Amino acid sequence: MGIIVQKFGGSSVANIEKLELVAEHIIREKLKGNKIVVVVSAQGKTTDRLIAEESEITSNPDKREHDVLVSTGEQVTISKLAMLLLEKKHKAVSLTGWQVPIVTNSEYSNSRIRYIHNETIEEYLEAGNIVIVAGFQGVDENGNITTFGRGGSDTTAVALAASLKAERCDIFTDVDGVYTSDPKIVSSVEKIKSISYDEMLEMSSMGAKVLHNRCVEIGKKYNVPIYVKSTFEKNSIGTLVNTNNNLEDLVINGVTKDDYISRITIVGLENKIGKTFELFKILSKNLINIDVISQSFGEHITKDIAFTVKMNDLSKTLEVLNEHKSILGIQEILHSENLAKVSIIGVGIANKPGVAADMFEALYENSINMHMISTSEIKISVLVDSKDSDLAVKAIHKKFFNK
Amino acid sequence: MGIIVQKFGGSSVANIEKLELVAEHIIREKLKGNKIVVVVSAQGKTTDRLIAEESEITSNPDKREHDVLVSTGEQVTISKLAMLLLEKKHKAVSLTGWQVPIVTNSEYSNSRIRYIHNETIEEYLEAGNIVIVAGFQGVDENGNITTFGRGGSDTTAVALAASLKAERCDIFTDVDGVYTSDPKIVSSVEKIKSISYDEMLEMSSMGAKVLHNRCVEIGKKYNVPIYVKSTFEKNSIGTLVNTNNNLEDLVINGVTKDDYISRITIVGLENKIGKTFELFKILSKNLINIDVISQSFGEHITKDIAFTVKMNDLSKTLEVLNEHKSILGIQEILHSENLAKVSIIGVGIANKPGVAADMFEALYENSINMHMISTSEIKISVLVDSKDSDLAVKAIHKKFFNK
Repeated sequence: MGIIVQKFGGSSVANIEKLELVAEHIIREKLKGNKIVVVVSAQGKTTDRLIAEESEITSNPDKREHDVLVSTGEQVTISKLAMLLLEKKHKAVSLTGWQVPIVTNSEYSNSRIRYIHNETIEEYLEAGNIVIVAGFQGVDENGNITTFGRGGSDTTAVALAASLKAERCDIFTDVDGVYTSDPKIVSSVEKIKSISYDEMLEMSSMGAKVLHNRCVEIGKKYNVPIYVKSTFEKNSIGTLVNTNNNLEDLVINGVTKDDYISRITIVGLENKIGKTFELFKILSKNLINIDVISQSFGEHITKDIAFTVKMNDLSKTLEVLNEHKSILGIQEILHSENLAKVSIIGVGIANKPGVAADMFEALYENSINMHMISTSEIKISVLVDSKDSDLAVKAIHKKFFNK
Repeated sequence: MGIIVQKFGGSSVANIEKLELVAEHIIREKLKGNKIVVVVSAQGKTTDRLIAEESEITSNPDKREHDVLVSTGEQVTISKLAMLLLEKKHKAVSLTGWQVPIVTNSEYSNSRIRYIHNETIEEYLEAGNIVIVAGFQGVDENGNITTFGRGGSDTTAVALAASLKAERCDIFTDVDGVYTSDPKIVSSVEKIKSISYDEMLEMSSMGAKVLHNRCVEIGKKYNVPIYVKSTFEKNSIGTLVNTNNNLEDLVINGVTKDDYISRITIVGLENKIGKTFELFKILSKNLINIDVISQSFGEHITKDIAFTVKMNDLSKTLEVLNEHKSILGIQEILHSENLAKVSIIGVGIANKPGVAADMFEALYENSINMHMISTSEIKISVLVDSKDSDLAVKAIHKKFFNK
């Protein structure tokens, strides 16, 4: 009998009707002879409601107390789901983060898991219980309640699967898997049957919102097969995220886009060792996230560097750069707004130069201008004008999937 | 610097405006140089809402999971109150039952405190914090969440005061103390300045709903001075419940009544050793609570016994008695409904026969018929017709308080 971890998000547990669907998924796996660990989020808009109530008290909530407050949301869900399963004559027991315990560091509201004690869960499983664990929360070594930040329940689920050496982790969501592109842009998207952890990381950082990077990273590190499935389908096969053993086969897995990008160009940075480092250190100190970077090459006295930031970081970035303009020896700072990053993702891209050519051809055929190009082992991204981004996704999707 | 425990109930913390009043009471005591431990209940109707949601899932909730669910109510309050105090620049920290920890037995929904660890609270107090503890909840020795049943937050407060050797425990309520009678009956009630634990126990079992017996019993056992005060008055002196050192002084502290009483008369019970015991054992096995008992005396072959039960236990009691009528050798079972018990409470009553005479005189002057009389060290109760009970309370109150 293997252990299976199932995770259900806030919209999947929003009310009693949806909890009934969740119970069906759990009982179906249980009846196959598996040991089941379930991870749930707070119901529907509960967390939003608690935060609204908090904002009546203070605009700057203490982070420790914030975690005490919001962690009640998942605690309500675990007890309700356990009651429902018990009502259906299945042994079930709920555990909060501290009851497991899931031990984290003390960074409130954004804590990271240090270790998980398996004993309590394993004892309850041995005794035939379905074990229902509160997502998104843990406890630090001093007994303070901590929470994990966005995507926290996915993290709980995959971390538990890793710690318990589960056969797999099923992440139930509103959609029945990961798609080759956004169905709102490309009408003929295909569901991806299988994708590697690295590709999934690229997909989600590129705008596919199905899984949070943090849980994929844990899945990769501990080799936990993750299935993305639909709560609202009985026999959803979903998408499997695991280690891709066929690195030599090129599989383009998806076309994604990320709007609201700005590009900043630094003209005339002194071409001296350490200057580039100094520039990015200042930006990082000011908590500005840099994405694509490219720089001019050649042996000149000065060099030019361009990089992208999210649109809502633009004004702060320009402010910081202007402050340090003379120290860094910058001649001029230029910027362009309303750009979008369009990417294709697939293991083996780096070894197949034809892929980049095909992608650029699709853009050329549609008269779409490329402002920057960036490549990695499994990804090619190009910067285009925002107005062209949907067309770019469609054209590239057609080129690779022939629809 | 002494420790003071302050307890605020659900209606005192129902919304942000009321939490502001609570914060004022806390800060006032803190600024006097005291160390403050605060105990709070769930906000307003929160517990009722959670129970309503629970009843959508099951009509027979698992008790362990019920406690996991309802204990979230107090957890929300402690975090909000801590945030509010921090917003006002006072160091504050919240603790759930398990974080203290308050260790209980495993009787879910009605657990009893085994012991309290003082260390965490003491460390936070030493560091200058106001410590805010969730009322009504604890944790058993296996790490399961438990709750205390009705009046649970009062119990938490007085138990913490006992464990921490606090100077006193202030219970803040909607009223500013304990009164000599029910203001709805006697317009000229007086607030009691000081009352002993035993008298308070009699008062609350007689229908005064201010403090729950369980917390008074703990107060008595560990000699914790308890003040009953109003949340809505800045300088409420309230009523002090403590050990009465003046046992020789007669102080009539209150006149109370308890409506909806029935009397059952057993006629012709065999006058043999063990028969009375057998009768009450059968009633107790059937979970019927007996109150006042009186029996005929003398050396006859049979005896008569009368006792009172609550009106809603009457039919069940009669049923049980009729079943066992022949076994017990009862000749006849009579009953009267619509009775009320009117009592006066005061230390030293037993040593002052004049008190009973005064009480009976007050009733006689108002032509009120007494059906039964029962006395204890600190209480005299008489059974009257329900229709006379308000008049009886007024008449007795006037006799002893001269108003």
